[in-house]
Amino acid sequence: MTKAAIIGGGVIGGGWAARFALNGWDVAVFDPDPEAGRKLDAVMENARRALPMLYERALPPEGKISLVSTIAEAVEGAAYIQESVPERLDLKHRVYGEIDAHAGPDVPVGSSTSGFKPSELREGVQYPARFFVAHPFNPVYLLPLIEAVAGEDGDAAVVARARRLLTSVGFFPLEVRREIDAHIADRFLEAVWREALWLVKDGIATTEEIDNAIRYGFGLRWAQMGLFETYRIAGGEGGMAHFIAQFGPCLEWPWTKLMDVPELTDELIATIAGQSDAQSGHLSIRELERLRDTNLVAMMRALKGQGNAAGALIAEHEVGLPRPDVEAVPAVTVERVIPVDWTDYNGHVNESRYGQIWSDGTDGILRAFGAGPDQMDKGSSFFTVQSNTAYRAEAMAGDRVRCETRIEGVEGKKLRVTHRMIRESDGVLLAEGDQILLHVDMKTRRSAPPPPEMAARMEAMARRHAEEQQ
Amino acid sequence: MTKAAIIGGGVIGGGWAARFALNGWDVAVFDPDPEAGRKLDAVMENARRALPMLYERALPPEGKISLVSTIAEAVEGAAYIQESVPERLDLKHRVYGEIDAHAGPDVPVGSSTSGFKPSELREGVQYPARFFVAHPFNPVYLLPLIEAVAGEDGDAAVVARARRLLTSVGFFPLEVRREIDAHIADRFLEAVWREALWLVKDGIATTEEIDNAIRYGFGLRWAQMGLFETYRIAGGEGGMAHFIAQFGPCLEWPWTKLMDVPELTDELIATIAGQSDAQSGHLSIRELERLRDTNLVAMMRALKGQGNAAGALIAEHEVGLPRPDVEAVPAVTVERVIPVDWTDYNGHVNESRYGQIWSDGTDGILRAFGAGPDQMDKGSSFFTVQSNTAYRAEAMAGDRVRCETRIEGVEGKKLRVTHRMIRESDGVLLAEGDQILLHVDMKTRRSAPPPPEMAARMEAMARRHAEEQQ
Repeated sequence: MTKAAIIGGGVIGGGWAARFALNGWDVAVFDPDPEAGRKLDAVMENARRALPMLYERALPPEGKISLVSTIAEAVEGAAYIQESVPERLDLKHRVYGEIDAHAGPDVPVGSSTSGFKPSELREGVQYPARFFVAHPFNPVYLLPLIEAVAGEDGDAAVVARARRLLTSVGFFPLEVRREIDAHIADRFLEAVWREALWLVKDGIATTEEIDNAIRYGFGLRWAQMGLFETYRIAGGEGGMAHFIAQFGPCLEWPWTKLMDVPELTDELIATIAGQSDAQSGHLSIRELERLRDTNLVAMMRALKGQGNAAGALIAEHEVGLPRPDVEAVPAVTVERVIPVDWTDYNGHVNESRYGQIWSDGTDGILRAFGAGPDQMDKGSSFFTVQSNTAYRAEAMAGDRVRCETRIEGVEGKKLRVTHRMIRESDGVLLAEGDQILLHVDMKTRRSAPPPPEMAARMEAMARRHAEEQQ
Repeated sequence: MTKAAIIGGGVIGGGWAARFALNGWDVAVFDPDPEAGRKLDAVMENARRALPMLYERALPPEGKISLVSTIAEAVEGAAYIQESVPERLDLKHRVYGEIDAHAGPDVPVGSSTSGFKPSELREGVQYPARFFVAHPFNPVYLLPLIEAVAGEDGDAAVVARARRLLTSVGFFPLEVRREIDAHIADRFLEAVWREALWLVKDGIATTEEIDNAIRYGFGLRWAQMGLFETYRIAGGEGGMAHFIAQFGPCLEWPWTKLMDVPELTDELIATIAGQSDAQSGHLSIRELERLRDTNLVAMMRALKGQGNAAGALIAEHEVGLPRPDVEAVPAVTVERVIPVDWTDYNGHVNESRYGQIWSDGTDGILRAFGAGPDQMDKGSSFFTVQSNTAYRAEAMAGDRVRCETRIEGVEGKKLRVTHRMIRESDGVLLAEGDQILLHVDMKTRRSAPPPPEMAARMEAMARRHAEEQQ
């Protein structure tokens, strides 16, 4: 089992621990805070609920998380080390000295720092080149972005290895070419924060109005395309150069005067805190976290359905997750966690989503004989012509379920399968399905007998399923 | 039919026209550009594809769009006037003079201006108080935000009426308390644009890297919560005051030095345009628009499924859309456009989504006898125990479909219904469904006979359906 060491176990460190553990890594967490265990549990609880919902396959078995009492113990045998201690350079240097003394010289050490440069972080250690910035975004267990900054004196090979490890647990490590204070994203966050403080201070807008101005408008654009691709569209066929010609002069407009930093007086802080209470005070932080995670899961899954933006990253990560055992009898064709977007007003999984399990279950066996979703280029597919579902018990978001599929008959272009959807925690049968499919030639989109080789594989599996049942 | 006048028919004006027309308003567009018709058609084509997919009900019949040759003709009889001409104050004043001369004095006139204040816009007109800022965000037919700025001398009653009209076509008109250059959102866009120019100019990041730094990280947060609610979470149980105490000092960090405006030299423009070509040049602007709209539709629908953020606005708007005629025989229980998130790798509607139509179809008739999704507080619901689907033809995203539902039997707690899903453009039968449901007491979540009054209504509808079939 691969091991990660997490130094500093707050919301950020806890998010790192969750990301590794839910991807099957063992994790050792060092944090001297006596409350560290409780805080880590709270993050893990959120992460266990949300992260598995991003995928149509089950994550591997969760790794072991241990809270350890020294940095030496944490880093022993770790393949990756992440530091998330408070943003004080002297503290980071002390922690790095200890890591450096106990971890092998080529083990990557990432820092969650929002602002420091790698050259500042690695001052005074024995093996400086393996220290780099790996700046994550909260919630770390859901958001893919990591700003990976090696800096001029970084060890490119170590950082490249670190980036591969980070990618393997679902992160997108963006290589930042040159070290710079606050990397990339926080410069934007900083700029927006500054403007937002002015707007509140000057009584132009409340915190809630500002949030609405973001989330009902450009926030939706940025979540899927970012800034430049959005503006490329605004430039029309003339592209970016046309956009800049048209909108560039706005930079000279009067509002650029407001670039001073507003002073954070007690009065301004009280105004902001009071407005924020009015806006969100009816929800606890835990409830807000759940709301945020539910929205993020739903939006990221929506993008995944289209194969775009953050959804494309999740789909790529999913390819590396273990597939259920389709060669078992009956075939295990689906093993997954029910996501939040499958439930309806009754609070349970909508009836139509059982059909999704059947659809995915059928894809699972189709793949075994060369007609699955990733083999469409061969020109074959199967279309369902009849589907029956008997509902046996309610299923809820978060349930981990399995679909067992049997081939009941293969006859020319016709295929008959049955499915059973089972909740894994207690083995309860949730629904049974029965489907008839026809092989379709995707060039003509008409039913046609499958190619002989495919037919032979179908019949072989059907025989195995029939034998076992006797 | 209510009429809107659109003055200036580019991408923004066209988006306004589309939003009104697709919500059933007649629209007169004035734009002296000889290419105006072609440009308007392009926007309408995008809008017709994307906007109807946000809703689980069909939009009303599209209003009539006419391109007219004078402002006088455009504004005649209009209940709302929107100006989207280029950002030159002299041009806007000329246009306003004409509007003012021909439109009734209490007809609201909104301006799409990104930067001008209402007090600047309304200079010199006869009825100044009805001119206000209604600043939209591209794509105007999808994004809900409108910054509505009345300014000090605005007519609050006219602007309030305008906001009601805008809400009725699905916008979220955010009332901006005080007029200010660039309103609210563009101040943020401006600040981020400035930082982005520095990053490209200094060779820290390319346009693509910047977009990735946004869309894989904080962009996802902002799309659903905005800035302050996100930071409230970061502050933990201590709330905003704690967050500011912790992160406020960052404002003093070195990167605030970069607040000068970088000069838009030819070299910088060429760098940005070249990077943008490398990033997105493989797609035409039309393809990028479709990609953006597909992502926005999918994400906004995901938020709608959770009842949160922009999705909550869509759900509220949907309540006002016409319901299909459930009292017809057979009952018309669903009438809607198939959204992009219902299709699968075969390019057609996934089989499970037919089950969604049956589920929604059943909800349609349940509502008629007091057990629908909006009547759950009465403690009654129906759970499906058996569902059969016979697939007759492929359905595609964008198809407008209808579901016809018949009650086939009512027996104690048991209800049997059949459904037919029909494509409206050609009347093709896409699928047939057959379902058995049980009445459930939502307090015990167990099956139980429905209350007598509900049973009587069910039987009456069953009789009507049976009589018609004889």
